[in-house]
Amino acid sequence: MNRFWSSVVQNLTPYVPGEQPKQSDLVKLNTNENPYPPSPRALQAMAKEATETLRLYPDPNADRLKQTLADYYRVTPQQVFVGNGSDEVLAHTFLGLLKHDLPLLFPDISYSFYPVYCGLYDIDYRMIPLNEQFEIEPADYAVPNGAIIFPNPNAPTGRVLPLSVIESMLKQNRESVVVVDEAYIDFGGESAIALVDQYPNLLVIQTLSKSRSLAGLRVGFAVGNAELIEALERVKNSFNSYPLDRFAISGAVAAFEDQTYFAESCQRVIATRGFLAERLNQMGFQVLPSAANFLFVTHPDWDAAELAARLREQAIIVRHFKQARIEQFLRVTIGTDEQTQRLLDALGSILNS
Amino acid sequence: MNRFWSSVVQNLTPYVPGEQPKQSDLVKLNTNENPYPPSPRALQAMAKEATETLRLYPDPNADRLKQTLADYYRVTPQQVFVGNGSDEVLAHTFLGLLKHDLPLLFPDISYSFYPVYCGLYDIDYRMIPLNEQFEIEPADYAVPNGAIIFPNPNAPTGRVLPLSVIESMLKQNRESVVVVDEAYIDFGGESAIALVDQYPNLLVIQTLSKSRSLAGLRVGFAVGNAELIEALERVKNSFNSYPLDRFAISGAVAAFEDQTYFAESCQRVIATRGFLAERLNQMGFQVLPSAANFLFVTHPDWDAAELAARLREQAIIVRHFKQARIEQFLRVTIGTDEQTQRLLDALGSILNS
Repeated sequence: MNRFWSSVVQNLTPYVPGEQPKQSDLVKLNTNENPYPPSPRALQAMAKEATETLRLYPDPNADRLKQTLADYYRVTPQQVFVGNGSDEVLAHTFLGLLKHDLPLLFPDISYSFYPVYCGLYDIDYRMIPLNEQFEIEPADYAVPNGAIIFPNPNAPTGRVLPLSVIESMLKQNRESVVVVDEAYIDFGGESAIALVDQYPNLLVIQTLSKSRSLAGLRVGFAVGNAELIEALERVKNSFNSYPLDRFAISGAVAAFEDQTYFAESCQRVIATRGFLAERLNQMGFQVLPSAANFLFVTHPDWDAAELAARLREQAIIVRHFKQARIEQFLRVTIGTDEQTQRLLDALGSILNS
Repeated sequence: MNRFWSSVVQNLTPYVPGEQPKQSDLVKLNTNENPYPPSPRALQAMAKEATETLRLYPDPNADRLKQTLADYYRVTPQQVFVGNGSDEVLAHTFLGLLKHDLPLLFPDISYSFYPVYCGLYDIDYRMIPLNEQFEIEPADYAVPNGAIIFPNPNAPTGRVLPLSVIESMLKQNRESVVVVDEAYIDFGGESAIALVDQYPNLLVIQTLSKSRSLAGLRVGFAVGNAELIEALERVKNSFNSYPLDRFAISGAVAAFEDQTYFAESCQRVIATRGFLAERLNQMGFQVLPSAANFLFVTHPDWDAAELAARLREQAIIVRHFKQARIEQFLRVTIGTDEQTQRLLDALGSILNS
């Protein structure tokens, strides 16, 4: 605490991201990165940006990327917003669209950055408990609210809602913004982007950090009604005119142009997820059904924190959350087949020890 | 206006950056970019980042860059904050260190993003007029205030304050944060970073967009007392954990390691500035003394807006601000020698027409 700090800072509880170890020999299954490299076309496009043109500012509106995303999702560029990772897109969304007199609603078990944004921007919120099976109950959101946000698939549970259920929530809440945070949608869900033309209160947020293997590049985006997007543009242009550098714009465009590579690498992750879930079940784990690139698991005979520590001793990192209701769960990112085998071998030796 | 917008958005007046034309045959002297390319070592370092490692998140703390900057400026890494361009660093500074009960002070003619941040974060501010010579009068800041911010050299005037005057302002204002925004310092000023160990209320902000020729990469930083930096880290970690991508971290490190290239390209800009100022004087322009990579000029016989329009017809863009007191001035970025000659030729033909 310091007399020069604003009262905002004095009351903040910052977000704590998963560990990013500097050691490179670890099997890193803790922050849901893609085990496969980015598209070779994206790598090539980024390498080409390392030229003298870097002396010039990038396009502040990233029009080329907006057009690419608009074409891909069959919307207009005015329905697309881009930012420095989906965390920045979320931050602007919280300030511009989710701060109202009535409380913002989100699940009690969900992306733990949500309450942090509420702290930063002084947003009143109410957490709605998932049911006993860790599912979102749409009826629980049919209460007076300023806005609603939830991830789909949810994190860290991995559970997905079908589009029909999301549509029913949109119909229930026509007077408030509903944000669907689709960081993991490409691994097995159906995107709500299909609904943005029908529901002027729907905003869908995605990232290139997971299914596009570009966590190191920092690009996220939102798709929704042009008036919702305009709110985000206004916040962005009051914060930082040029959030995407030249590498980010070019790499993101090329990644979306390489549909074949994308579809293949998603399929590989999905296949490995099925294999891993089956093996973990055989070892006695309870495995929640996952539509994401991770599994959320618990073992009746083992303390989750201890299991994570034992895996760490074998140079494997998974994510454990010290949070009520889920403290006996581990979130395990889907790795390569080789990493998956190392994980299974390590778990086998620990469980039999 | 839209019913889904927060009241914050409804009241915003966003910043309007200088034009970034998609046409590449223009002589672009409107946004103070460096006419020379980035260091070849920086380009090489960035090209090397276009690999499969991009699937992994970058270091959220950018420790390697903080260490490089700390070594360069002889401070500790705990005294360094880094962000996605100095605009993001400024945004976090406004929210974390400049929002207080008493008004924030800044010059009436200065970086026009300052009042926009105040609008975004609901910060009370008071603009202090520059004197008739467009100089900051330190005595004018010896009034009750919540904090102070000013660019040095100032933009768009180009005028610089010596370190002794900045120190007197720090002594006058020991109970409030004083931010010196040094975007242009490397072109002829003395950095206040030399004073951060003595003044716990001093924060210095710089960018790699100007003197390091990396506007397209988006990297800025702040240096100050570790407790001021801690405030910025808390805001940053409540906003976006990973603001710097892998290209930005590597390119910025390499740019700071290539001191020879940096010193030479700054010297070339400074030499051209002297030449251009002399020629413009000979053409009847009044040229403010500049320590930046631009000149702020006015001509007694010509309307500034018309002059800008005439230059534009000849494919040369300079910056004109529709703002009281400076509407008869143009801000002209220092270009290459060839660009400078094209500018002088064009002005010659316009003035003699």
